[in-house]
Amino acid sequence: MNITQASEEDHALPFNVFAKACPSRGTLEHITGRWGGLTLGALYEGSLRFNELRRRVDGVSEKMLSQTLHALERDGLVHREAQPTNPPRVDYELTPLGREVAERLLGLIHHLEGRMDDVLAARERYDEMRGGV
Amino acid sequence: MNITQASEEDHALPFNVFAKACPSRGTLEHITGRWGGLTLGALYEGSLRFNELRRRVDGVSEKMLSQTLHALERDGLVHREAQPTNPPRVDYELTPLGREVAERLLGLIHHLEGRMDDVLAARERYDEMRGGV
Repeated sequence: MNITQASEEDHALPFNVFAKACPSRGTLEHITGRWGGLTLGALYEGSLRFNELRRRVDGVSEKMLSQTLHALERDGLVHREAQPTNPPRVDYELTPLGREVAERLLGLIHHLEGRMDDVLAARERYDEMRGGV
Repeated sequence: MNITQASEEDHALPFNVFAKACPSRGTLEHITGRWGGLTLGALYEGSLRFNELRRRVDGVSEKMLSQTLHALERDGLVHREAQPTNPPRVDYELTPLGREVAERLLGLIHHLEGRMDDVLAARERYDEMRGGV
């Protein structure tokens, strides 16, 4: 049976992001894609409205943020709450699963931010050796 | 001074992936991009030759793996070791910084793989509510 056909009967099926047909690979990309990671990271601090989120995730377009939120909502990582007000108010927040994932992702992000001096020094050495890239 | 001009004099400068001009955002993308994360994860188990790596990272093309390795090498996360044999033998391995980053990334990956049943259940609920996507 193909791993892409995983259904509720197969919950013992091992998921493996290294296998290209495994659905976990798509979810990993939603989480770590250009905007997915920053969106999860921003929501970790609390629920935000669409425009607040857009300001926090510096550089994202309205269309890309909207697509990113749909993918994260579909994967059960983000919850969308529409208030029946006029105009309607829509808040986005992490689900418990989204918090678990965001926590690990922020661990990676903060570690990276703390080691960027080493990254920049490595780039300088690399470019000197190669005569620039 | 613009954050993109960070040099050795500025090592107290805070890096912040949420700011679009911060160089840490590019490195985060190398680490978490479509192939960067899988490459780091594969190398966490030990050094690999190019073709071994290509088999492990199921679905990657030669060109994409080559580009991915160059970006990771330039950021100081991967070390490329060419043996002076004939034909030349090239091994790739993580640097200490690459290991730190890969460890955190694998924590995220393993957590996600362990929660994919919930992700797939969420997708089913979402698609039922929306009448399919």
